[in-house]
Amino acid sequence: MVQYPGGIKKNYLPKKKPILSTSKGFKNRGMGLESDINASNDFYNSENIALIHKRPTPINVVKVDYQRGAKITHAYFEKQSTTDYNGVFQKRYLDFEAKSTQSKTSLPISNITTHQVEHLRRVIEHGGIAFFIIGFEALSETYLLKAEDFLAFMASAKRQSLPYRWIKEKGAAIPFGMRPRLDYLKVVQQLYF
Amino acid sequence: MVQYPGGIKKNYLPKKKPILSTSKGFKNRGMGLESDINASNDFYNSENIALIHKRPTPINVVKVDYQRGAKITHAYFEKQSTTDYNGVFQKRYLDFEAKSTQSKTSLPISNITTHQVEHLRRVIEHGGIAFFIIGFEALSETYLLKAEDFLAFMASAKRQSLPYRWIKEKGAAIPFGMRPRLDYLKVVQQLYF
Repeated sequence: MVQYPGGIKKNYLPKKKPILSTSKGFKNRGMGLESDINASNDFYNSENIALIHKRPTPINVVKVDYQRGAKITHAYFEKQSTTDYNGVFQKRYLDFEAKSTQSKTSLPISNITTHQVEHLRRVIEHGGIAFFIIGFEALSETYLLKAEDFLAFMASAKRQSLPYRWIKEKGAAIPFGMRPRLDYLKVVQQLYF
Repeated sequence: MVQYPGGIKKNYLPKKKPILSTSKGFKNRGMGLESDINASNDFYNSENIALIHKRPTPINVVKVDYQRGAKITHAYFEKQSTTDYNGVFQKRYLDFEAKSTQSKTSLPISNITTHQVEHLRRVIEHGGIAFFIIGFEALSETYLLKAEDFLAFMASAKRQSLPYRWIKEKGAAIPFGMRPRLDYLKVVQQLYF
C-alpha cells in the first residue's frame, strides 16, 4: 500500500484508524516502499542525478474557514488519475507508480485504476519512460517492471494479480543500499539508455 | 492569480471570501489563465499531442473523520515546492508555472517561491524544458517566458516584478483560439525543437 506524504494511507474509504501527518515516528521510521523511494529521490535530487517528485495527493476541498487562517474544515481524498511519481532523468520524462504487498506470491492489481493504466500507456506513446516499482515486503525484494510488460500482461491475461514468479522473470531487481536506499535509476539506466 | 482545481484560489492565507470547489459557475466560466491552460491540456491529451497535468495542490492533512467516509475535518494548504504543471511532449520533459496579473505594466514575482526558482533551474540542468506562462489579463495577452531568461533577469536585476515591456520583448506571445484555447505547445515547438 503506497503511503501519502505524512504517512496517510492511500485508501479512499479507509476502515483503519488514520495515521496523522503529525505522527513523525511513523513518517521517519524508515520503512515501507514509499519512504524508501522518497529518500532515494531526495538523494537523486541533492546529488543532481535526477529531478523526481511525488505528486501531491489530490484532495477535493469543500469548505475553508478563512477566519482561522485558511483552515480546511471539509474535504475528501480523491483518486489519483495519474501515477504517484514523475520527473526528468537525463533529458527523458520518467513516470512511475509504486505498489507494495505483503503477499509472497502475487501483487493484487485491483488498486491500479484504469485511469492510471491509460496514463502509463500514454506516457509510452509520447516517448516517456513508464514503469512500476513493486515491493514484496515479506521477501524484502523490490522490482522494476516496465509498463510495456505490464500492459502486455493485462491484455493477454484476465487476472486480478501479477504473479511473483512472472514479476521476478520479467522485471529487474532493484538493489537496496544506504545511499540511495533503492537505486532504481541504476536499473532505468540499464533498461532504457 | 493561479487557481486551484475547483476554483480555490492559490493564496495560502487568503483574505477574500473563498470560492468553493462546488461553485461550478465559477469553474466553468471559461475565464482565467489556469482554466485556459487546463482546457488546452485536455485538448492536447485527447488529441494525443502531449501528456501534461496540473500537480494537485499539496495539502497537509491533520485530522480525518473515518466515521464519516474519510472526511477531512482539519487540514491546511501547503506551498507548492515545485511548479504547477509538468508532463511529456515529444519525448521531452516539460515543466512550467502559470502566473497572471491584472497589472498592465508588470508581473509581481513575490508569489514565486525560491523553491520554485530552484526547481526550474534544476529542470534545465537535467535537460528538461522549463518556462512560465504569463497572463496579462487586462491586456488579454499571454506570453511564454523561458525559465533561462527569467533566471538571468533575476540574477542581474534586484526587482520585485517583471516589467511588461521586458516580457513582451523576451517572451513569445501565445495565440488564443478555440481549440486549444492557449496553444502554448506551438510556441514550445518553435522555441525548443
